[in-house]
Amino acid sequence: MLQSKLFTKTTKNLPEGETTKNAQFLIKGGFINKSSAGVYTMLPMGLKVLDKINKIIREEMNAIGGEEVLMPALVHKKYWEQSNRWDVDVIYKTSTGEKGKDFEYGLGWTHEEVITAIAKHFIQSYKDLPKAVYQIQTKFRAEPRAQAGLLRGREFMMKDLYSFHMDRADLDKYYQKAISAYNKIFKRLSLKTLVAEASGGAFTKEYTHEFQVLNPAGEDSVYYCDKCDFCQNQEIFNSSNHKDCAGEIKNSKAIEVGNVFKLGTKFSDAYGLYYTDKDGVKRPVIMGSYGIGPTRAMGAIVEVFNDEKGIIWPEAVSPFKVHLLALSDSGKVKSEADKVYKMLVGQIGETEVLYDERSASAGEKFNDADLLGIPLRLVVSEKTVSVKKVELRKRSEKSAKLISIADLKNLLK
Amino acid sequence: MLQSKLFTKTTKNLPEGETTKNAQFLIKGGFINKSSAGVYTMLPMGLKVLDKINKIIREEMNAIGGEEVLMPALVHKKYWEQSNRWDVDVIYKTSTGEKGKDFEYGLGWTHEEVITAIAKHFIQSYKDLPKAVYQIQTKFRAEPRAQAGLLRGREFMMKDLYSFHMDRADLDKYYQKAISAYNKIFKRLSLKTLVAEASGGAFTKEYTHEFQVLNPAGEDSVYYCDKCDFCQNQEIFNSSNHKDCAGEIKNSKAIEVGNVFKLGTKFSDAYGLYYTDKDGVKRPVIMGSYGIGPTRAMGAIVEVFNDEKGIIWPEAVSPFKVHLLALSDSGKVKSEADKVYKMLVGQIGETEVLYDERSASAGEKFNDADLLGIPLRLVVSEKTVSVKKVELRKRSEKSAKLISIADLKNLLK
Repeated sequence: MLQSKLFTKTTKNLPEGETTKNAQFLIKGGFINKSSAGVYTMLPMGLKVLDKINKIIREEMNAIGGEEVLMPALVHKKYWEQSNRWDVDVIYKTSTGEKGKDFEYGLGWTHEEVITAIAKHFIQSYKDLPKAVYQIQTKFRAEPRAQAGLLRGREFMMKDLYSFHMDRADLDKYYQKAISAYNKIFKRLSLKTLVAEASGGAFTKEYTHEFQVLNPAGEDSVYYCDKCDFCQNQEIFNSSNHKDCAGEIKNSKAIEVGNVFKLGTKFSDAYGLYYTDKDGVKRPVIMGSYGIGPTRAMGAIVEVFNDEKGIIWPEAVSPFKVHLLALSDSGKVKSEADKVYKMLVGQIGETEVLYDERSASAGEKFNDADLLGIPLRLVVSEKTVSVKKVELRKRSEKSAKLISIADLKNLLK
Repeated sequence: MLQSKLFTKTTKNLPEGETTKNAQFLIKGGFINKSSAGVYTMLPMGLKVLDKINKIIREEMNAIGGEEVLMPALVHKKYWEQSNRWDVDVIYKTSTGEKGKDFEYGLGWTHEEVITAIAKHFIQSYKDLPKAVYQIQTKFRAEPRAQAGLLRGREFMMKDLYSFHMDRADLDKYYQKAISAYNKIFKRLSLKTLVAEASGGAFTKEYTHEFQVLNPAGEDSVYYCDKCDFCQNQEIFNSSNHKDCAGEIKNSKAIEVGNVFKLGTKFSDAYGLYYTDKDGVKRPVIMGSYGIGPTRAMGAIVEVFNDEKGIIWPEAVSPFKVHLLALSDSGKVKSEADKVYKMLVGQIGETEVLYDERSASAGEKFNDADLLGIPLRLVVSEKTVSVKKVELRKRSEKSAKLISIADLKNLLK
């Protein structure tokens, strides 16, 4: 892709109230646009990052038998009333005006109600179990404060997986499978997560589990052991819970990028989701739910991978694999850079190469490249042309080196 | 995919008020679930169809230089006020309760406002033009009547492309390009469309153009010539517009699956989207917008391709390429069918084969296969096993034939 053709440009201007690194770098780089507090547009490069994150999530959800669905944003009042969640604080409701109650919706901030009602159509017998479905879609929460960029929005993307089981044992087994899938996902996203125990709230007396990225930008606080894998959300932490380990307990701010939750029969009871077992006995279906916030994960990645100049994208989610800079827009330098571009497009595809062929100063190009944070930067200049090489620098490293086109080809294989 | 593992099942039960074929077949087949009037969940097989439609649209939008973005559903009041569209009938508004005006949104039923405000950040000079961006996302309209299944929903998917130009001539050129892209898309979707002239409403004195599928389920009415490509929406039709052709004018109901629209400067003026030309003169950016309804297109496909037994998916959008039926769940028939399944998975991938290995009667399996409408049906039975072949029937044809595994392999290549 030619940088001069890109819809976006980098900018130095920031809208008011954007104090977090993720919002600042993503807006300056032209990855996202702030629409209003807590509401952002994903611009082309931002959407490319988000799509890559979602692709990774999708692959791992499919791998544990999840089937994808897309549920409504307009969730009718009748759904929320059945589970006593019509009057929660965070729900956006549509104002019906003169249109009457057929038009009363709460915008989907969670979809247990909808999926449980749907599951009733398809789960009647033990032969129909277990099942797992997931959604990757926009959700809404009327957050009073929304000032953390993609870390806490009023409109954001969520992946939610819902599982349906005959009994606790089967749920427990699947729950561990989901935790393994989550560990794989966050590893692929380069996010180091701790699995923190947290309260099950009204749903369950058991702990639920959160996937926490230790980071000062986080709004959660966790206590964790520096030797074993003990980790608890501040809300439930009690040092006496930490047994049989000589490790030291530490405290940190953390970003919650995922959670897994044993819903048990809360929604099956509310919606009458029962199945008939082998002996003909009617039993409630046992449910689990498993969330990941792809947009929040994107924000967390930026909070973790950056320096004073900009973002340092991990390769798996970078909008482009390679950023090619031509330090002149004419003559030998330009024609050599064009050749390198052509080679790169042939090698890794047009969608993976950003080619800065603009009429701009070298300084501007380097600054933009640092801000955009594409992992591999290639520079074609008078100097590199004279020695028949290109300059290669990893965004994560300080030093650059000269490399021949042949070696570059091998490197990208 | 094993049919016994599928989240959904076929059903004979229909919710109230579903009179259209698309709603009936899609619900009976388990492609969609009705959440409330005009609001549906895309179930796994329905989402597979929708994803295939969107992939085709995406490819053709990218081919004409479109860059994809994802805009908010929560569009703040301030955006609508600037273009005088806060008080339109079809907008869903959030009720703010005690939260105050920071929480006043209209749910995005169209996004000209948002994209124009965004474009201001990136378009300042003639060097920044032309540009084209598109979105494929959920939109919302408070439709008083919503009884046509996917043909007219309150929540539905839209692809909207927006283009930005220096002058009318450049817009006109791109407009023709978009029309060509649309023709390609509908051809790939197997939808035969007429390009109908329609009113530009408040935007333009020129005609706009609609892509209409002639079908009795449509809510539009078009007049078209049986010899030339004259076609007008009833709203503007006048027989005296039809000149220099001896063809006969016919009238038909039609489903509008797309439209292209010269916005001109309506939104650039409202939002102050100007650029500086080569001579340093400030001029308004000229805009175009181009819509396709992927969910409506899905409904239209079902309205066009069906018989009394169910859907007949065109191959390009079918949830699976092949439906394999084992007419017994044990013995030689089952083991042979398992072998064919393995071969098919190797040949076209697991996601493209639905394997009915359920313990169900042959009649039930045939009925389900007809309802689901997968283009290629393969049957393994006592009869086919005895002659070492499989039975192949196209969903669109009445007659079946016996084919050897070797020939089947070649057919799928």
